[in-house]
Amino acid sequence: MKILVLHGPNLGRLGVRDPAHYGVRTLAEIDALLQSRGAELGLQVQSFQSNAEGALIDYLELEAPTARGIIINPGALTHYGLSLRDALESIHLPIVEVHLSNIYTREEFRHRSVVAPVVTGQISGFGWRSYLCALELVAQLVAETGQTHN
Amino acid sequence: MKILVLHGPNLGRLGVRDPAHYGVRTLAEIDALLQSRGAELGLQVQSFQSNAEGALIDYLELEAPTARGIIINPGALTHYGLSLRDALESIHLPIVEVHLSNIYTREEFRHRSVVAPVVTGQISGFGWRSYLCALELVAQLVAETGQTHN
Amino acid sequence: MKILVLHGPNLGRLGVRDPAHYGVRTLAEIDALLQSRGAELGLQVQSFQSNAEGALIDYLELEAPTARGIIINPGALTHYGLSLRDALESIHLPIVEVHLSNIYTREEFRHRSVVAPVVTGQISGFGWRSYLCALELVAQLVAETGQTHN
Amino acid sequence: MKILVLHGPNLGRLGVRDPAHYGVRTLAEIDALLQSRGAELGLQVQSFQSNAEGALIDYLELEAPTARGIIINPGALTHYGLSLRDALESIHLPIVEVHLSNIYTREEFRHRSVVAPVVTGQISGFGWRSYLCALELVAQLVAETGQTHN
Amino acid sequence: MKILVLHGPNLGRLGVRDPAHYGVRTLAEIDALLQSRGAELGLQVQSFQSNAEGALIDYLELEAPTARGIIINPGALTHYGLSLRDALESIHLPIVEVHLSNIYTREEFRHRSVVAPVVTGQISGFGWRSYLCALELVAQLVAETGQTHN
Amino acid sequence: MKILVLHGPNLGRLGVRDPAHYGVRTLAEIDALLQSRGAELGLQVQSFQSNAEGALIDYLELEAPTARGIIINPGALTHYGLSLRDALESIHLPIVEVHLSNIYTREEFRHRSVVAPVVTGQISGFGWRSYLCALELVAQLVAETGQTHN
Amino acid sequence: MKILVLHGPNLGRLGVRDPAHYGVRTLAEIDALLQSRGAELGLQVQSFQSNAEGALIDYLELEAPTARGIIINPGALTHYGLSLRDALESIHLPIVEVHLSNIYTREEFRHRSVVAPVVTGQISGFGWRSYLCALELVAQLVAETGQTHN
Amino acid sequence: MKILVLHGPNLGRLGVRDPAHYGVRTLAEIDALLQSRGAELGLQVQSFQSNAEGALIDYLELEAPTARGIIINPGALTHYGLSLRDALESIHLPIVEVHLSNIYTREEFRHRSVVAPVVTGQISGFGWRSYLCALELVAQLVAETGQTHN
Amino acid sequence: MKILVLHGPNLGRLGVRDPAHYGVRTLAEIDALLQSRGAELGLQVQSFQSNAEGALIDYLELEAPTARGIIINPGALTHYGLSLRDALESIHLPIVEVHLSNIYTREEFRHRSVVAPVVTGQISGFGWRSYLCALELVAQLVAETGQTHN
Amino acid sequence: MKILVLHGPNLGRLGVRDPAHYGVRTLAEIDALLQSRGAELGLQVQSFQSNAEGALIDYLELEAPTARGIIINPGALTHYGLSLRDALESIHLPIVEVHLSNIYTREEFRHRSVVAPVVTGQISGFGWRSYLCALELVAQLVAETGQTHN
Amino acid sequence: MKILVLHGPNLGRLGVRDPAHYGVRTLAEIDALLQSRGAELGLQVQSFQSNAEGALIDYLELEAPTARGIIINPGALTHYGLSLRDALESIHLPIVEVHLSNIYTREEFRHRSVVAPVVTGQISGFGWRSYLCALELVAQLVAETGQTHN
Amino acid sequence: MKILVLHGPNLGRLGVRDPAHYGVRTLAEIDALLQSRGAELGLQVQSFQSNAEGALIDYLELEAPTARGIIINPGALTHYGLSLRDALESIHLPIVEVHLSNIYTREEFRHRSVVAPVVTGQISGFGWRSYLCALELVAQLVAETGQTHN
Repeated sequence: MKILVLHGPNLGRLGVRDPAHYGVRTLAEIDALLQSRGAELGLQVQSFQSNAEGALIDYLELEAPTARGIIINPGALTHYGLSLRDALESIHLPIVEVHLSNIYTREEFRHRSVVAPVVTGQISGFGWRSYLCALELVAQLVAETGQTHN
Repeated sequence: MKILVLHGPNLGRLGVRDPAHYGVRTLAEIDALLQSRGAELGLQVQSFQSNAEGALIDYLELEAPTARGIIINPGALTHYGLSLRDALESIHLPIVEVHLSNIYTREEFRHRSVVAPVVTGQISGFGWRSYLCALELVAQLVAETGQTHN
Repeated sequence: MKILVLHGPNLGRLGVRDPAHYGVRTLAEIDALLQSRGAELGLQVQSFQSNAEGALIDYLELEAPTARGIIINPGALTHYGLSLRDALESIHLPIVEVHLSNIYTREEFRHRSVVAPVVTGQISGFGWRSYLCALELVAQLVAETGQTHN
Repeated sequence: MKILVLHGPNLGRLGVRDPAHYGVRTLAEIDALLQSRGAELGLQVQSFQSNAEGALIDYLELEAPTARGIIINPGALTHYGLSLRDALESIHLPIVEVHLSNIYTREEFRHRSVVAPVVTGQISGFGWRSYLCALELVAQLVAETGQTHN
Repeated sequence: MKILVLHGPNLGRLGVRDPAHYGVRTLAEIDALLQSRGAELGLQVQSFQSNAEGALIDYLELEAPTARGIIINPGALTHYGLSLRDALESIHLPIVEVHLSNIYTREEFRHRSVVAPVVTGQISGFGWRSYLCALELVAQLVAETGQTHN
Repeated sequence: MKILVLHGPNLGRLGVRDPAHYGVRTLAEIDALLQSRGAELGLQVQSFQSNAEGALIDYLELEAPTARGIIINPGALTHYGLSLRDALESIHLPIVEVHLSNIYTREEFRHRSVVAPVVTGQISGFGWRSYLCALELVAQLVAETGQTHN
Repeated sequence: MKILVLHGPNLGRLGVRDPAHYGVRTLAEIDALLQSRGAELGLQVQSFQSNAEGALIDYLELEAPTARGIIINPGALTHYGLSLRDALESIHLPIVEVHLSNIYTREEFRHRSVVAPVVTGQISGFGWRSYLCALELVAQLVAETGQTHN
Repeated sequence: MKILVLHGPNLGRLGVRDPAHYGVRTLAEIDALLQSRGAELGLQVQSFQSNAEGALIDYLELEAPTARGIIINPGALTHYGLSLRDALESIHLPIVEVHLSNIYTREEFRHRSVVAPVVTGQISGFGWRSYLCALELVAQLVAETGQTHN
Repeated sequence: MKILVLHGPNLGRLGVRDPAHYGVRTLAEIDALLQSRGAELGLQVQSFQSNAEGALIDYLELEAPTARGIIINPGALTHYGLSLRDALESIHLPIVEVHLSNIYTREEFRHRSVVAPVVTGQISGFGWRSYLCALELVAQLVAETGQTHN
Repeated sequence: MKILVLHGPNLGRLGVRDPAHYGVRTLAEIDALLQSRGAELGLQVQSFQSNAEGALIDYLELEAPTARGIIINPGALTHYGLSLRDALESIHLPIVEVHLSNIYTREEFRHRSVVAPVVTGQISGFGWRSYLCALELVAQLVAETGQTHN
Repeated sequence: MKILVLHGPNLGRLGVRDPAHYGVRTLAEIDALLQSRGAELGLQVQSFQSNAEGALIDYLELEAPTARGIIINPGALTHYGLSLRDALESIHLPIVEVHLSNIYTREEFRHRSVVAPVVTGQISGFGWRSYLCALELVAQLVAETGQTHN
Repeated sequence: MKILVLHGPNLGRLGVRDPAHYGVRTLAEIDALLQSRGAELGLQVQSFQSNAEGALIDYLELEAPTARGIIINPGALTHYGLSLRDALESIHLPIVEVHLSNIYTREEFRHRSVVAPVVTGQISGFGWRSYLCALELVAQLVAETGQTHN
């Protein structure tokens, strides 16, 4: 069972620059953690990072049809990436929106997510832990498929 | 190590009325799940529900000084409970804001949380799973205390 | 057949202070009028006043399951009591929102009712008559139950 | 004692089209109900419907000087008919604004009534019952003339 | 040389009702004053009042082609009569917008004139004098035709 | 099969005044084009122009029950004619909103159409061609009746 | 009887620069016209121009107590000069606000006058004629003193 | 002569937590200072703190009828406590709104006080001194009763 | 004569997913219809789809200099693609903006098109028919080149 | 120890005009009260009034370097005097903003103070008493210099 | 060739107070740098500082007619000085708006310049270097006079 | 010492199309001017143009670590490119935002730069000169590194 993990613009540099602010773990390390935990849960975790909205949509077009769940940190596209939103809206899988920082403690423009209304749920503010927490939830939601999940 | 779980207005009826919409689990069942999982994690989970903002603040004044972490679903107070916000802001513990439903798919007024800027992070949209996920994160954050958690 | 009548903050002083502005009838007198007219209509009218939003919700949790209709004047909670709104929204009975004064001739903030979208209808501007008019309508709606009421 | 009942744009088709949504009673039937109940109350109810704001104002100019009260459902003019508002503002009689549906559960633009600030009070959400309820109140207000009606 | 004077909704009752507020002069008296002063200036003043926006536009379509200037008090249409605005915009004559009262001391919605951007100028706040002042200006502008009038 | 073509305020003067700006074709010429093309398509095209919102609604009340499709250029009513909107909303036929000019290149207030949410679709910016294009589409939609038209 | 004429910032250069846009008459010429016409009306017209808001207020403090009416073109202070507004508000004389151009055809920020709510009336769009028209009105209002001027 | 001092939500912890930010004086110490100074001024100072809006209103209902002045720091209720506002509005005594911090240097939502329009005046930004300053003013205003206090 | 047809983000999946909502025709089928009809009209229709705003602009830079007209459905870029807007603005050809659905019946953010002010006209709400209608209009506008098209 | 007292535009006429509204004390009398009380407190109170923002800033540049505290009533500059704000912001002394009236009971534009965010605190609504109260606080703050004043 | 350099309110204290924040160079030093560099470029640089908007406009009226270019740092007038804007708008010379700090990193109100739309261009964020950079550009623009400068 | 020059969407066509509006210099010519002047200043100027936000971010990721300063004209991304903003925000080098035209004289949406808050400073309105001016400033800022640059 394939789970997609998408990282949006500027996340490729995670852990490389400004570790004091963004944490010391690199994106590769986070992806490794996800794959390792995914394996324990019987899930194949497949990651993708791009600075381009178009490339993220291309990837979803290609991979979503054979996936069972999606974890996405859209970076700044969270706030204006309406094309990405449309792509996610047409995918009928559990989708978890993830943010490293608590976006509600930052600039005003970061308080609004255009993606949030089309995902299953949102986790923000727990650093790399947000991703792992998302993986647990996706695993659970996939397992429960066919049930209502309220 | 005591973890507080606060449920705001109207959550006492969870699972009793409109189960098709709000889920079949009662608040008591969710609290039991949290206590059970808390026990496994070595945490004492202590729950409290009130329909009154003042009572929630009273409870925090009394219990927060001896707690290590807080999970809170403020119900509709999420959107206007500035006094609750002030109470939470002055507590220097990991605090996780939890919502059963994805608040961004509902009425406009539910998109803004006045509490979000003063908590550690937010989880919304995963039903009762949101609470358990919050407990895991609080456990982790408490364990890491003394470290930065980015 | 029990009909609940809820009076929100500051309505306890009706008729006591500033009679020139708010009318000379006390809340007790209005409640008596409602009970008397209710009796004629075969309805048991049960009144409750509180200055606390939480107490109004507690009362609804306790009494609504055995009631057939609700009349509510939320006082200033009309404009920000989102918890009260949620409590009313989950009750599937005829609910009539009542205001003594015409709220549209007063301060800007009084023009918006957060409760209005979850009630059956609204009556404002007719003083104590608003309550009696509401009672007639609730009686009618209860009698017609099972029919559409457009 | 003459009471005017004004119906604004599109209300002429009431009960004819989309009865599932707007109710099965035609405007003629509602007018008949009002006349019948008016007769019991000693009131002469005189109805008028027009799709044109100007015609409604012309009618008020002509008839209001000899009337004792007014019931008006301005239809969509509720939200932009400032000329109608001015006409009503200059009439010193009890005026009841009536809406069939609860306008606060519909589109955003229907939440604001430009007429509300110049009428005695408003009743919305009770279908054809809103009109009859309005007639009772007008009758009462007319009878009390000379008294304050708070 | 024909000058058109248009009076919008509700102006027909000028001087009849509420003279303390709107002045004691009737519309007929104002029109007579304008015709008399117009005669002195060699102008044929032709007045028209209607409560209907459509009728005002019909009148302009019919009469403007043979007129030399226009004085208009659009009443409440000032604030939403965009069709009237379009009619005026396509007329290449001196047009003076007139208001009896100072619209900037009244309700917020009266502060914006949708007609103002398509007229030559605006006079407000001087009661019936506003009309006479407008007539003097129209006479002057007509006389100066062919000159710039800054 | 009857197709209604409604022209709103000020459109009667099309091609007469300011041909450089609004085009040289008169409304009569456009109506003739539509009738001619309609005849080829087996449609009876019936046109109506009025400067009054009420008259347009009266016409729809009378003619829509026997028509199969509607083309409407509401003129400036596009931006505030909520009564016209309600009339159109209750008609279950293909309706095409037409504008001669590209309304998005003009004043801010022209960018919002209150009619657009209740029509099938909108064509703007192609002058008289917009009407003919609308006729082709109405013909097609009428022919496809019974099919979904996405 | 002294009438004050105040000219705000940048009006000193009237007729000197950009005559094509602002007209060929200098401020001195306009003042001369006003004095000449004032003399005919038995009024002593006294003019003052300043680029400083403070100086205009100083002048009003000094001169208003002995004046009978005020004509003021506040220039750009129209839109933000709240101190000037306060100065005018405390003067109980006829005050006419004058603008050379039609301020409603210019930039958005020029559409709002902070002075308008505290003056008797406003004249805009008639170039230098606006001033003379204002003088006639002030003369009339002064003459009528003691009467209501609606 | 009894003076009421009301402290809103979260003020009970003053001086206990975060003394560096909120000051080292506890609420009890401030109340003691007020009582002591009150005694010197011949005033009986009676304090009350609650985290619940309803309880503050209950207290005002009970105590205000026998009091001569009110000092209130509504805490976060300042910004949304419309019920508290209504309670204060109906009390015809000198009322001083007090804030420890300068609320205009804090978050945007703290800049608006819904209470300010119904009190005599406001003092903010001087820590515990704000309360003592308020007491002096209340004493003075009570002493001057019967005089205007501008 | 080459006509460019541009399809923005997510349009590549048309007809593949959710046919009940977006229609059963694939993008390839629509392109084939356009080419076929184009051939009849003597036009060479050349289509391009991309999920990336940059790629759409690159394509316009390359192809527009040799094209005679443009049809574009910008997908969600309609609402925020200001770079695409700038690219279109600098192209002096007939440009038709096309939308499958009536964007005015959908989410608020879809009501504003940043592209509309720089195109010739807009067609929305007619499914695949919108494209064919656009092709007819482009053909006509190209044929009339050199004439004004009002 | 010198304390500066600045009075903004229009305050020079205090007590002279409209004593019923603004109080009977002249500015000179208030200044005398302040000097007298200042002498008791060992403070040299130095007052300055100007109708010009620039002059107030000049005065601050000259006098602030040798002063120990500032009391300022900026008059209407409170709402737009950003230059005055900058001047105050760069002065590191206790600064008390004073208003005679409760600015929150007046026009909307008076509710916002651009000066408030850069002063120590604000006192409004107590007439001339506001100034004396400010003097007491400045005296106290100056005496406590070197301490935190929360 | 004379170049004017205008410094608005509070800039006279540059380098004197808070050098850590505003830089160590005084305004006199910056003016000297400008004169020295101006001499090299064959330009006579003439500086003026005032805290009064009126004085800046007076200076422009006097000096602009004989100048060839203008450099202006309007200080806080940048955000509300509409009179200064009008003065600059009527001057047909190259005008460079200069800011020491990056105004877009400061308070919200500093992000909008009312002067920017009437100047040639803007330089902000480079401290005293902004002025010298402006001088180079003015020199260049003056030299190119008669050419377009895009 | 490497200086990066980034040109955003649509800038590749500079000087090719619409030279009357955008100037006759091509982007290649501007880049050549920058390299030539850079060489004189001992700087290696390296230019990059892309129509894709993602590609600009990729370039910054690759090249910024070895660069000493950045000049960027983000084209229309200036107004919505939040991902580009995040990329620039994480780079701790002097960054100069450049615009050919004065963006404050154009459409409303161009007045807000989302990039401005994260750059050192901004230069707009001087055509190709803006770039050269930026280069001089970057050179200076790089040379001064280690000093504060206020």
